[in-house]
Amino acid sequence: MDVLLLAVELIGTFAFAVSGALLAARKGFDVVGSVLLSSMAGLGGGVARDVLIGYGPPLALQNPIYLAPVLLAVVLVLTGLLHETRLRRTLLVFDAVGLSLFCLTGTVIAWEAGLTELACVLLGITTAVGGGAMRDVVANETPQIFNPRGVYAVPAMLGAVLAVTALSLELSLLWAGPGIALVVFTLRMISLR
Amino acid sequence: MDVLLLAVELIGTFAFAVSGALLAARKGFDVVGSVLLSSMAGLGGGVARDVLIGYGPPLALQNPIYLAPVLLAVVLVLTGLLHETRLRRTLLVFDAVGLSLFCLTGTVIAWEAGLTELACVLLGITTAVGGGAMRDVVANETPQIFNPRGVYAVPAMLGAVLAVTALSLELSLLWAGPGIALVVFTLRMISLR
Amino acid sequence: MDVLLLAVELIGTFAFAVSGALLAARKGFDVVGSVLLSSMAGLGGGVARDVLIGYGPPLALQNPIYLAPVLLAVVLVLTGLLHETRLRRTLLVFDAVGLSLFCLTGTVIAWEAGLTELACVLLGITTAVGGGAMRDVVANETPQIFNPRGVYAVPAMLGAVLAVTALSLELSLLWAGPGIALVVFTLRMISLR
Repeated sequence: MDVLLLAVELIGTFAFAVSGALLAARKGFDVVGSVLLSSMAGLGGGVARDVLIGYGPPLALQNPIYLAPVLLAVVLVLTGLLHETRLRRTLLVFDAVGLSLFCLTGTVIAWEAGLTELACVLLGITTAVGGGAMRDVVANETPQIFNPRGVYAVPAMLGAVLAVTALSLELSLLWAGPGIALVVFTLRMISLR
Repeated sequence: MDVLLLAVELIGTFAFAVSGALLAARKGFDVVGSVLLSSMAGLGGGVARDVLIGYGPPLALQNPIYLAPVLLAVVLVLTGLLHETRLRRTLLVFDAVGLSLFCLTGTVIAWEAGLTELACVLLGITTAVGGGAMRDVVANETPQIFNPRGVYAVPAMLGAVLAVTALSLELSLLWAGPGIALVVFTLRMISLR
Repeated sequence: MDVLLLAVELIGTFAFAVSGALLAARKGFDVVGSVLLSSMAGLGGGVARDVLIGYGPPLALQNPIYLAPVLLAVVLVLTGLLHETRLRRTLLVFDAVGLSLFCLTGTVIAWEAGLTELACVLLGITTAVGGGAMRDVVANETPQIFNPRGVYAVPAMLGAVLAVTALSLELSLLWAGPGIALVVFTLRMISLR
């Protein structure tokens, strides 16, 4: 896999892993619960994508580096360096960063696996919203994705559609990617006002 | 895939998608939540089946037509053309139609993938009850399948066993299929009285 | 698959299936709900492992024998031979046996599929804790794995790490296996005091 794509995956993983660790803290889970919920939030979307693509073990299982952002997120939350009440705004920013990056990487990885345009869009959305949905389901909460306050899946869908369009037109994602991520991120942040 | 099998899959998808859209409406989810819950109810069983069979991306990802019944169901519920209190009975009929068709298609698709008889029965049941279970789990409800009022999994199991028997005897499913579906449908409707 | 490995899998399946049948009884589910929850608890971890390994249908679908311990557990609970209030301690022992066996079998099966050491450890943990997590999520309970009272995932992780170490050193699991299982079992039981 491309180094840049991997870097983007890892940053997105970190952002979602933080959300998992914070939910674990709010629910009074211990350190093991925190690791599990962070893993699910950070890696769940990508694992679901890879299982659906169906070409062997998920990337997160093949490459140990995927665990680094999860463990970093857990440590930062357990040591209190990341804290919910104080940095709530910062965390929504992190989450929006994760959403905007994962709809891109999910779409690109599905594309490289040779799937159809529609499948790429659906897998981009799955990657972007899957981890957060698993996090909430496993912690026995109604998924944030169903929260009527704040648009969540629509920006991810738009990002995936734009990414497939860019890939179809053979545009360089080195240039188009940041622009698409910025659009998704901005839409998500505006919806939270 | 056979055109007839695809048609049966799409009708079943529509029936379950309606159940998802209605649950989304009852829980106050917005249009995006409605699309997600309908997709999960309508496509979740078949996606689980295809992931378990393990021969590449699920049919619902490969063929865009699978999304059509989901979107139709969402539109019909959002516009109020399908409405819970008025048509509760009608909906149980739809749901029973979905159940009776999906235990057939699930079994046949597993059979065509070359699995053993028992695996075909288990995947027929998974296809029939999987989408509804995912719908309820994701919406944070105890799955209907565990509701002691009304038999749900038993008719699906019977249908899958009958379908495997028909396939083993090389009977034409063009003739046996409608008979099996009718038995499953009738059993389910009787249990609801 | 090795006969010994299969035997260990079946004993672990039985232990977890009992936990599923007991939860179904506590929640007032009928016999069908009991079968479903037992199947999920007993087979869910192994099915998740096999789906993540990605080499075709899960073992539990290919080999009918996997259903035997599930059905046995359901019968024992429904007939009242296994009963929660009287045998609570016994059941925690069963559950700990399941945990200690499944972290071994999960790791070995992943190893035989040619995955990396880290992936084997992660799949060992998934196999050990996955069924119980599915059981609780589907029954709309907060998973026991997040219960701050009693360590659950840590013994499984230790067992998986020890199993990978033994496999790497080409030790005979005929000798190392029982030792590892005993360590995991003991740790789990001590944490419950």
